[in-house]
Amino acid sequence: MTMTALKTENTDLYPTRLPKEEWLDRHDPAVWGKWTPQAPLTEEENASFEKNGYLVLKDLFSSDEIKALQQESSRMRSGNAAIAPENVITEPGSDDVRTVFRLDQQSLLFDRLARDERIAGRVRYLLDDELYLHQSRLNYKPGFNGKEFYWHSDFETWHAEDGMPRMRAISASVLLTDNDALNGPLMLIPGSHRTFVACAGETPDNNHQSSLKKQEIGVPSPESLARMADQFGVDFAAGKAGTVILFDCNTLHGSNGNITPFPRSNAFFVYNAWSNRVVAPFAARAPRPAFLSDRDATRSITIETGNFA
Amino acid sequence: MTMTALKTENTDLYPTRLPKEEWLDRHDPAVWGKWTPQAPLTEEENASFEKNGYLVLKDLFSSDEIKALQQESSRMRSGNAAIAPENVITEPGSDDVRTVFRLDQQSLLFDRLARDERIAGRVRYLLDDELYLHQSRLNYKPGFNGKEFYWHSDFETWHAEDGMPRMRAISASVLLTDNDALNGPLMLIPGSHRTFVACAGETPDNNHQSSLKKQEIGVPSPESLARMADQFGVDFAAGKAGTVILFDCNTLHGSNGNITPFPRSNAFFVYNAWSNRVVAPFAARAPRPAFLSDRDATRSITIETGNFA
Repeated sequence: MTMTALKTENTDLYPTRLPKEEWLDRHDPAVWGKWTPQAPLTEEENASFEKNGYLVLKDLFSSDEIKALQQESSRMRSGNAAIAPENVITEPGSDDVRTVFRLDQQSLLFDRLARDERIAGRVRYLLDDELYLHQSRLNYKPGFNGKEFYWHSDFETWHAEDGMPRMRAISASVLLTDNDALNGPLMLIPGSHRTFVACAGETPDNNHQSSLKKQEIGVPSPESLARMADQFGVDFAAGKAGTVILFDCNTLHGSNGNITPFPRSNAFFVYNAWSNRVVAPFAARAPRPAFLSDRDATRSITIETGNFA
Repeated sequence: MTMTALKTENTDLYPTRLPKEEWLDRHDPAVWGKWTPQAPLTEEENASFEKNGYLVLKDLFSSDEIKALQQESSRMRSGNAAIAPENVITEPGSDDVRTVFRLDQQSLLFDRLARDERIAGRVRYLLDDELYLHQSRLNYKPGFNGKEFYWHSDFETWHAEDGMPRMRAISASVLLTDNDALNGPLMLIPGSHRTFVACAGETPDNNHQSSLKKQEIGVPSPESLARMADQFGVDFAAGKAGTVILFDCNTLHGSNGNITPFPRSNAFFVYNAWSNRVVAPFAARAPRPAFLSDRDATRSITIETGNFA
């Protein structure tokens, strides 16, 4: 091993929570696999993910499979699923369930979904590594008063507060409701994944207790967001229930509130490359709890094929 | 005059702020004019307004006219226009200007816009009467943290709190920024104008002081909104700066918040039929102030033609 390689391993490539916000280059590819006609993505899909930092996949699942996921989702939010309170986040100002964490550990069906080749097989190709789940959750944004989720890069938080070393993780959002432009869809800034916005401000202790409701530390400044949006525009990802959105860990994203009567729900899986397992946080005194960041994965997930309904 | 006619004149056709919410039939047409090929709307536009309760008109103004309106809008929000505080509403939790009222009285250019044949001529045809401005305002929804505006029928408030007798008023929103599905556009429930949702709850004194920031009395229940949206769906009206949206006084509308960097701004004119001038409020102890509801119109507006830039 040369000195150069050693230096790289010991240097924080993505310093953040600094006195002043900075734009830094990305040191990692977005697509780690080498595309061939046998890859689980078309050449166009591959190029689009690399360029934009996200990809929308439709018609991966049968209607029976989608129905089974929706029923399981209702059961988990019903209060009858005996989910420990530390895994549940409610809407600000109400008891409505906004998020259920550790989804794969609380539901055999969602565990199976997380390991389905149609999602995990594509992610394994993109990251070119074995996978484990850094985080998994069920999101529910009610109609009438669904709150917004402000712009952020997931990687910025995962690096600063969880100790994820490199940009080698991908999130998959599986829509469980029909989603359109008006009911608070996922908005993304295409191409933003190629820049790391190192954020200003020190991490407060137990930052996650407030940041899950409303993130204030670890978000880009309005100036940075405006500059990104002027350069790249703002897109949104939507579709019928069953649609899958894959996005890079550093793609800036957020969502507007939702006053329409139509709720929005999705299952959310964060796949991290096995070689990219978390270490000590890069910019926080203590790591976030395990429901936000699995620190104890002992083996990579086993991908399964076939209809699960 | 027959007894029947007398009875109609003395009865409140649209009772609201009741102990219990009710759906009542509309007693007024949406289009009062009789369409001929000389009408200022195409037959399709006419039918669409009648059916849906709104209409989006593009390319009415030249780019010079649009630029002039945008410059005037910036001037009015700049703090240099010496606008009396009672005409200005700010965002909840900040000093950012959300609304400037009595727009036609504070700007010669916006007064001219309000009386432009391309807008007011079409509205005069639809209402088949002379017009006056019940209300006029400049709306500004900033980027990053623009707040939502919850679902409501304008007529419900204008009837209850201003004393507008009948559904014979039309609003025109003139977009001053490019607007799309993501930056908090006007959302409407097509066809909702044909039902009057009589709202539950008594009107508190000085209700407008809080309702302009966040309306709580005079809005349909979630159940009513869900039923409307299931029946009719939810649409949005958007377009480039200069686009004009006409909508009936009873069409249910609202807008989501806006975390995108792109602000949204429009000039807003409420045209009431001269024969439909306000009387005493139907469900409030005192009428709202004049900046919300002109009670002193002495003559109808004079419509003007030609380029105003």
